[in-house]
Amino acid sequence: MKHKIILDCDPGHDDAIAILLAAHHPAIELLAITTVAGNQSVTKTTSNALKVCSLAGIRGVPIAMGMDRPLLRPARYAADIHGESGLDGPHIPAPTLEPVAQHGVDLIIELLLNSAGDITLVPTGPLTNIATAIRREPQILPKIKAISLMGGAIGLGNTTPSAEFNIWADPEAAAIVFGCGRPITMVPLEVTHQALATKEVLHRLREARRTVATFAADLLVFFAETYHKVFGFVDPPVHDPCAVAALIEPEIIQARMMHVAVETTGEWTVGRTVCDVYGKLGNESQVRVGYGLNVPRFWDMLIETLLTYD
Amino acid sequence: MKHKIILDCDPGHDDAIAILLAAHHPAIELLAITTVAGNQSVTKTTSNALKVCSLAGIRGVPIAMGMDRPLLRPARYAADIHGESGLDGPHIPAPTLEPVAQHGVDLIIELLLNSAGDITLVPTGPLTNIATAIRREPQILPKIKAISLMGGAIGLGNTTPSAEFNIWADPEAAAIVFGCGRPITMVPLEVTHQALATKEVLHRLREARRTVATFAADLLVFFAETYHKVFGFVDPPVHDPCAVAALIEPEIIQARMMHVAVETTGEWTVGRTVCDVYGKLGNESQVRVGYGLNVPRFWDMLIETLLTYD
Amino acid sequence: MKHKIILDCDPGHDDAIAILLAAHHPAIELLAITTVAGNQSVTKTTSNALKVCSLAGIRGVPIAMGMDRPLLRPARYAADIHGESGLDGPHIPAPTLEPVAQHGVDLIIELLLNSAGDITLVPTGPLTNIATAIRREPQILPKIKAISLMGGAIGLGNTTPSAEFNIWADPEAAAIVFGCGRPITMVPLEVTHQALATKEVLHRLREARRTVATFAADLLVFFAETYHKVFGFVDPPVHDPCAVAALIEPEIIQARMMHVAVETTGEWTVGRTVCDVYGKLGNESQVRVGYGLNVPRFWDMLIETLLTYD
Amino acid sequence: MKHKIILDCDPGHDDAIAILLAAHHPAIELLAITTVAGNQSVTKTTSNALKVCSLAGIRGVPIAMGMDRPLLRPARYAADIHGESGLDGPHIPAPTLEPVAQHGVDLIIELLLNSAGDITLVPTGPLTNIATAIRREPQILPKIKAISLMGGAIGLGNTTPSAEFNIWADPEAAAIVFGCGRPITMVPLEVTHQALATKEVLHRLREARRTVATFAADLLVFFAETYHKVFGFVDPPVHDPCAVAALIEPEIIQARMMHVAVETTGEWTVGRTVCDVYGKLGNESQVRVGYGLNVPRFWDMLIETLLTYD
Repeated sequence: MKHKIILDCDPGHDDAIAILLAAHHPAIELLAITTVAGNQSVTKTTSNALKVCSLAGIRGVPIAMGMDRPLLRPARYAADIHGESGLDGPHIPAPTLEPVAQHGVDLIIELLLNSAGDITLVPTGPLTNIATAIRREPQILPKIKAISLMGGAIGLGNTTPSAEFNIWADPEAAAIVFGCGRPITMVPLEVTHQALATKEVLHRLREARRTVATFAADLLVFFAETYHKVFGFVDPPVHDPCAVAALIEPEIIQARMMHVAVETTGEWTVGRTVCDVYGKLGNESQVRVGYGLNVPRFWDMLIETLLTYD
Repeated sequence: MKHKIILDCDPGHDDAIAILLAAHHPAIELLAITTVAGNQSVTKTTSNALKVCSLAGIRGVPIAMGMDRPLLRPARYAADIHGESGLDGPHIPAPTLEPVAQHGVDLIIELLLNSAGDITLVPTGPLTNIATAIRREPQILPKIKAISLMGGAIGLGNTTPSAEFNIWADPEAAAIVFGCGRPITMVPLEVTHQALATKEVLHRLREARRTVATFAADLLVFFAETYHKVFGFVDPPVHDPCAVAALIEPEIIQARMMHVAVETTGEWTVGRTVCDVYGKLGNESQVRVGYGLNVPRFWDMLIETLLTYD
Repeated sequence: MKHKIILDCDPGHDDAIAILLAAHHPAIELLAITTVAGNQSVTKTTSNALKVCSLAGIRGVPIAMGMDRPLLRPARYAADIHGESGLDGPHIPAPTLEPVAQHGVDLIIELLLNSAGDITLVPTGPLTNIATAIRREPQILPKIKAISLMGGAIGLGNTTPSAEFNIWADPEAAAIVFGCGRPITMVPLEVTHQALATKEVLHRLREARRTVATFAADLLVFFAETYHKVFGFVDPPVHDPCAVAALIEPEIIQARMMHVAVETTGEWTVGRTVCDVYGKLGNESQVRVGYGLNVPRFWDMLIETLLTYD
Repeated sequence: MKHKIILDCDPGHDDAIAILLAAHHPAIELLAITTVAGNQSVTKTTSNALKVCSLAGIRGVPIAMGMDRPLLRPARYAADIHGESGLDGPHIPAPTLEPVAQHGVDLIIELLLNSAGDITLVPTGPLTNIATAIRREPQILPKIKAISLMGGAIGLGNTTPSAEFNIWADPEAAAIVFGCGRPITMVPLEVTHQALATKEVLHRLREARRTVATFAADLLVFFAETYHKVFGFVDPPVHDPCAVAALIEPEIIQARMMHVAVETTGEWTVGRTVCDVYGKLGNESQVRVGYGLNVPRFWDMLIETLLTYD
């Protein structure tokens, strides 16, 4: 049976590839794409989702624009990594698709309320939409089967020394989601920094000379440049598809249950995912935290799926 | 020329071994030992320093009792790791030495003010004494040659998920020290968790059948048990001597300059040493942060020095 | 021309009287009542709004249930003041009215979006509904004519030494509202503690022997008891109608423009409305803060209006 | 029997008058004056204390320079109120007295340790010296008979909307002092804003044509100007002598026991003295908080004492 998912994202280069993975992998039924402010403004991330689906021929998946800023804080984008459009690099044609009229949060609420409790949320951006939906309609909570999210770090962050971008961008939303009581898999930087788009990966994407796989490779070339400039990485980490992959094959990541809290008040540490690896705090272990990745299996899954597109 | 140092410590098993290293290594001139509340109350840590020096025949080094609690917070000890005495395990005879009458903070101030600016501070406990001395007599600042401290973590803490014990115990003091403007080498858990007292290490300490080396081995056996129980470590990390070793041979640790801030206000992250590895914050790189250890060289240095005792 | 208002409340004894004032005062057109968790759970505050309107014969005003808990924090009710029902004291018949199906936040958004920008929001409870509406649909902002709210304190709070209940209950929501950029009148405890329901007030309410005015008097008798017990007040302050009165006759309160911030992070001061009376911070004066009340005029307005009911 | 006191101050116009009151009032035995950074740098406040004592002929009272900055925060002075010298206004001759060599904190510790437990501390500046003494030598605690301090506010602050200057300047020190367990009388702005140096007060000071009383009047003229400019006061409040007066005649202030906490972590409220007037928090009432002043009695006491000088 397929995993029914809502992909809540802020494309973004790696979000784009997560969309491509989710839309064509045989184990996934992609019910909707909702967008959120994050890597860029929600107008741009929505436009990018539309562009990716238009280009890839993804049809029948509603795309709904969600929250335009974090719950409490001003929006802060990641233009240094994703460029001014949020999806800089390859030329992408104007989208032929349009978003649905419904607000992303309302779509999430409606899909969940009307579901049999079999929908998994896959957030790959700030958690503003999910948190707003939970607060606006608490009755969705028992309907959420699970959450498989890209975000956070056990050790070092990437936006501040303490915090990974998705959590840092809306820490209060993250605190709501991590405290919501539903099963959560967190795919942090420790996992995604193993999903490096090496020269070999790019070669495999390009050699079939297919439009979408080549497009993915082109995205990763731009991403490689900014990651090299900002972080000194030789090859860029492809974060967001890892959260989709961890749902498809849970054993693709090494993971452990532990308590995770989100810091919302520190002077230097806002947005940190505080992972109690040693169980020092005595709190309930409510999150399955990834720390390892079966790298070859991940790339095989991703590349095979991308090659199913024209 | 020898490094003149003041060892400011809270013995503590690994502090005890740091004392032994500092007192007998030919590159070190140990001017004084000052004690502080940390692993146990300052009464106990002072008694432990006296016991160690008495047992090892260390003479002529003034031992001065310092601050009995952190600057702002209540004292919280590490009895789970070091036992009720702060130095549980082997039977240790009552000390034959006595502390000097002078307060530890006053001794630090006096030694520095009367120095030629050639004294390095080596703190291996909470930084309460050093911070109090700096605030009480700002004129010592230009007299501090450098600070080589054991404390903090780049990634995961050991007392909370965010914080290492020494910094967590008095984060405000740590913030004062990290912001004091003098050259600082920080030896964090990433380094000290490589200094594992393996079976082979214990064997090397014991095989010469000398009193002090055997005592050190006995201390480490107790330490191994608590570390195994609390953290699941197979062999215990010998933290504090690393800060002495990093002064004797700077290249014994791999290290990089970066900005380090101390979190004092977070809900979950108080006491975190926020290490800006990627330079994301744009602040001055004021701390040399260790991340690697030449493990064989460390043990050779430590064991050779311990074997110079009877 | 009448003031079109949405009364966003958590009845609550004084909220009940604010409803009665808003529904019958000739200068007010009450478009809707939205309810929120505050003095009691949103289920109870909604039921109470329905009971009050049923009893008073208020018809044609949609009543919509809103948010069931604060944005981030757990809900905490004021049962010590308002009793377990939120409206303890007089026996009140079961309501004959029903809430609309629409969520309170959605009703606020819809009314504002469809308006000519002539609607004033009158919140007399925690600001969760208003803040959620603002974040969920930022396009309502230019449509909000003004906000006249009961909440906060210049000096001493009533729930903690620093904070008044409505702001304390959801400080993050309050911070969003106070920062929203629309004209705000804040009616704080300094005003409402002058609106004391004295024996004379109760007498005036009762002497006409009308159902609704007598009901109001009965409510105030219970309120007097809890205020006496908790705060030592001789006569209870009738907070919420003051925010309605300040809209009807702005000069009924003495007020000054000043900057008001909401503290969300202090250890002891969460929920404080920080009123910059002396302009020390140099920030924009964005709130008209009441500090005085024309007490006789207030009671005349309120009692006259209550006496228009049967 | 006289009250033995140490006056710990940061002169400062009103500190200067507090010195004059303490040095000549028959009920006070002034053991020492210690100075602290506050209204100005500790170098300037020490110089000002020396100038005042030199001019007034106060002899035999040791003046010791104390802490040059707050425990944790950078020093921030009140030049807008007290001018660049900390005692702007009348020309004051260079001091003929010199400070003792001993540090102010050490003098406080020595006097207390050598006392019979009969010394009251009277702080009229930031509490850095007192807090440092308490932490550096906890054995002084049972020796402190009481503390009568000028600082804090029940309602509105004067440096920020939340905080009075002395507490705001070093909130962590204030938190240590308010939590020290010794009897504390707090003389807040609610009291001192009643001690207004009116035209009549100035006239009474001047009419005797004595040097010191005239000097006091001259100080108050400058103080009046800055208070008018910054706060719009018609007559300036003479804060610091109130703390001396409250010791001499406890009934000169109206006061109540209540719990007082010091906020050290708020975004807008750092330095607030959180006074639990209604006992809402259930904490121990550890501070006698003034809220009223017998104004005629205060001025009689102060003016009579000032007229005992030449």
